[in-house]
Amino acid sequence: MANFDLMRRLTRPEGGRIILLVMDGLGGLPIEPGGQTALEAAETPNLDKLAVEGTTGLTIPIARGITPGSGPAHLALFGYDPLRYDIGRGILSAFGVGLHVDVGDVAARGNFCTVDENGIVTDRRAGRIPTELNARLIEKMRSIEIPGVEIVLATEKEHRFVLVLRGDGLDYSVSDTDPQVTGKPPLEARALKPEAERTAEIVNEFVSKVRQVLKDEHPANMVLLRGFATDPNLPKFDDIYKLKAACVAVYPMYKGVSRLVGMDVLETDAHDTPADEFRRVAKAFEDGYDFVFCHVKGTDSRGEDGDFEAKRRVIEDVDKALPILLELKPDVLIVTGDHSTPASYKSHSWHPVPLILWAPATHLPDRVERFGERACANGGLGHFQATDLMPLALAHADRLDKYGA
Amino acid sequence: MANFDLMRRLTRPEGGRIILLVMDGLGGLPIEPGGQTALEAAETPNLDKLAVEGTTGLTIPIARGITPGSGPAHLALFGYDPLRYDIGRGILSAFGVGLHVDVGDVAARGNFCTVDENGIVTDRRAGRIPTELNARLIEKMRSIEIPGVEIVLATEKEHRFVLVLRGDGLDYSVSDTDPQVTGKPPLEARALKPEAERTAEIVNEFVSKVRQVLKDEHPANMVLLRGFATDPNLPKFDDIYKLKAACVAVYPMYKGVSRLVGMDVLETDAHDTPADEFRRVAKAFEDGYDFVFCHVKGTDSRGEDGDFEAKRRVIEDVDKALPILLELKPDVLIVTGDHSTPASYKSHSWHPVPLILWAPATHLPDRVERFGERACANGGLGHFQATDLMPLALAHADRLDKYGA
Repeated sequence: MANFDLMRRLTRPEGGRIILLVMDGLGGLPIEPGGQTALEAAETPNLDKLAVEGTTGLTIPIARGITPGSGPAHLALFGYDPLRYDIGRGILSAFGVGLHVDVGDVAARGNFCTVDENGIVTDRRAGRIPTELNARLIEKMRSIEIPGVEIVLATEKEHRFVLVLRGDGLDYSVSDTDPQVTGKPPLEARALKPEAERTAEIVNEFVSKVRQVLKDEHPANMVLLRGFATDPNLPKFDDIYKLKAACVAVYPMYKGVSRLVGMDVLETDAHDTPADEFRRVAKAFEDGYDFVFCHVKGTDSRGEDGDFEAKRRVIEDVDKALPILLELKPDVLIVTGDHSTPASYKSHSWHPVPLILWAPATHLPDRVERFGERACANGGLGHFQATDLMPLALAHADRLDKYGA
Repeated sequence: MANFDLMRRLTRPEGGRIILLVMDGLGGLPIEPGGQTALEAAETPNLDKLAVEGTTGLTIPIARGITPGSGPAHLALFGYDPLRYDIGRGILSAFGVGLHVDVGDVAARGNFCTVDENGIVTDRRAGRIPTELNARLIEKMRSIEIPGVEIVLATEKEHRFVLVLRGDGLDYSVSDTDPQVTGKPPLEARALKPEAERTAEIVNEFVSKVRQVLKDEHPANMVLLRGFATDPNLPKFDDIYKLKAACVAVYPMYKGVSRLVGMDVLETDAHDTPADEFRRVAKAFEDGYDFVFCHVKGTDSRGEDGDFEAKRRVIEDVDKALPILLELKPDVLIVTGDHSTPASYKSHSWHPVPLILWAPATHLPDRVERFGERACANGGLGHFQATDLMPLALAHADRLDKYGA
């Protein structure tokens, strides 16, 4: 991981401007023997030019062979050892919707679900109800009161919501109520250590009251909770790296992990295209940010759909919009993914992720002539841990002092 | 880092002879887009032949993105984790000029400087006075006495000198008196922990007496002190590696770091060319050393001057002289740098450093056909931490036992 003590010692408050463009789930596999990956198959003249001019490599998100979730994969890109900072889903969701969570508060991610007359879960996502219905149900649930604890609820998206409990003596070491399969009833929340017994009781009382409040709704007549967590109190970007950092992302989850590391999360619209997002990066530079993390979700979504051609088209859309970023003349532009999502898998994978580091004043161009998994495997940066990316970015932006005399 | 316990367990007292040739600041960047680095541009038939016959790679001196000073970069090449062994400049300077520093003694690096009538520093280096004048001023300063402490002074080079304090109850946790900028007076030395208060007082008394002694001198009428340190008591080469090791270097700093790790420092002349130094390596082999570290400074100096062509010529001089080393038939010859010093930067940089490991009995030749940054990026040794070099060198010299049955 980035050595934070070393970073605090060596980072300078002034230097070049950095863009970190993450195409979620960028890496992939061919869908037929001898074929190309979606990235290799895509027509990407702008990205290929960056690959020719800059230097390339492959990143290992967590460790060889380990498939990351989105939270750990992004923490790694930001320099945080994801094995050390094991962030609960509840916190990522809460920060994602902009809820304030203090150290000691307990956050959980909730799903609206469907249960039958016997209380058995028949659909863990309640048919992915629309966000508007979610908001109406959350409003109903706000009538629930439990003495000694403040209950905060917020709609996330579709069937997903966030629960935050505030009060004295809470502890997040509570087991999920989500059974993870249909055909079973929701689980009782259990304390995973004695200090969490009161919190488990509160959670069970809350769930029981929700069952009453929603009993006449359909299909969303019950909730499942998971990922109980509190604020992990991560070191922040301005402290470690002396960067004024901003996040441009459409999905709440990525806003959440950005807030956790101390970035300002800029306003976006749910329908933003890559070009729209890049224009928001331009605005961020105008507003004085010197590091902008820009997140494109489509590559991962289409990979998870198993739609190779659609994933390829998202990459081509990013390529077409790229001149908007290049016109900003960043000192360092990094283009990579947080992990691989091969369309043939329909899920995340452990395969290392192609990366371009383009920093015209400081990079050593390698011999790689296009952007792709196999081209980058022979790049000038070699194969390296994603957690080493931030020190490399800072070095290329002339933001690090020398170590030792 | 090299695992010293493992090395002590596996190293054999007998085996092949090793030469580690370090061209300081070897790595570089092109000076124009699409151009070559100084190393790539240099005509190096002998080095290219080694690259063809041997195996190559890139080393990371400290960590990706971190620009090393010369001390940490050499410690890394010698297998010492430079983040763990954070050696003060005073010690490197003292060992460099051959001063004996015991654990408990306090060493500092001194600069002669110029102050105006108000005591404000106007030149931190006193116009880089000649070494001869430095020696005369040091002789004057030897008249200074402080009860209870022995004061040892030695000329280093030009405006630089070394101060060593010996006595009971000293502690090196003392702040620099060098303000690092002109326009300010020298700083008071401060104790960084209570045990160092007496030492800080001694330092301030010494500086005050120096001011008196030098008051009629010009331009060197004051001194600045920095890098207070004591002997870090590093593990030694003969203990860890079972090597009888020698250093051939012209500059005091590199002699210093070699003495710190227990090498014998062989006599050299300030005007030694690479060919002269290589003849001293030959003498070292005659004298029974089985490991010789040979340091060429010119690559770094010309890089720091920003003189790309001159850096190229130093590399070509080394190449021309290389047959002197090859005639010695070393079992292992390593050619590398301690860090990069691109002429376009005029300073050290973080870029990884090209390396040849040539060991005809044991190396696996790769497909690299010449010596250069980008050629070595695809070398058979990959990209690796400089601290892994010593185990590789020992292995290729048949000096390591098998680990486990």
